[in-house]
Amino acid sequence: MAEFGSQERSSFIASDRVEGTAVYNPAGERLGSISRLMIGKQNGQVECAVLSFGGFLGIGNDHYPLPWRMLNYAVDKGGYVVDLDKEKLHGAPRYDLGREPEFDEAYTRALYTYYGVNPLF
Amino acid sequence: MAEFGSQERSSFIASDRVEGTAVYNPAGERLGSISRLMIGKQNGQVECAVLSFGGFLGIGNDHYPLPWRMLNYAVDKGGYVVDLDKEKLHGAPRYDLGREPEFDEAYTRALYTYYGVNPLF
Repeated sequence: MAEFGSQERSSFIASDRVEGTAVYNPAGERLGSISRLMIGKQNGQVECAVLSFGGFLGIGNDHYPLPWRMLNYAVDKGGYVVDLDKEKLHGAPRYDLGREPEFDEAYTRALYTYYGVNPLF
Repeated sequence: MAEFGSQERSSFIASDRVEGTAVYNPAGERLGSISRLMIGKQNGQVECAVLSFGGFLGIGNDHYPLPWRMLNYAVDKGGYVVDLDKEKLHGAPRYDLGREPEFDEAYTRALYTYYGVNPLF
């Protein structure tokens, strides 16, 4: 698990500290961990964080991109809590290791629609 | 060096592919590599990419946060080209390994001012 240290109190977080951080649902069940962030090259906006699980040696095989704003860091858990149950994950946009989709505007729009999240900040 | 693969043509890039990517100045000199991205927790905005060099085993000791928009990926170089010479780096905001500054709004504002970059997109 990533070490947050003093960054827990900061309004900024380092990308390599997000990667590897555990993700839980509100019931406290561990869903997996964040494997990477997808960033718009032009505007530097993190569009989604990829929740990964399964696989071998910590390299998840199941990948679920989630809108960044769905992640809420819980200090007591040392990980993110996402308002998401396994039923909602069933049917969510996902991909297998090595078979990444084209993360374009249409893809991220569909993702935000699926989770009912407003893409605008 | 990070593998970009098909992401070269995409408008999105994965955080773990940015980390480790080489940074060159326009003269083609290698300045170092990107060690991490600093992200606003609330808005998911990448405020800066940390250019690191020196140190041991690829773990740089000298860290220079750069505004994200200063990075331009050059396919032929397989790395970022930043309009920056060693003279400009001298005197730039920097920190040693393990002695991270507080990345707050004042810090990033000073950073953008130093490099003459508009923080607004």
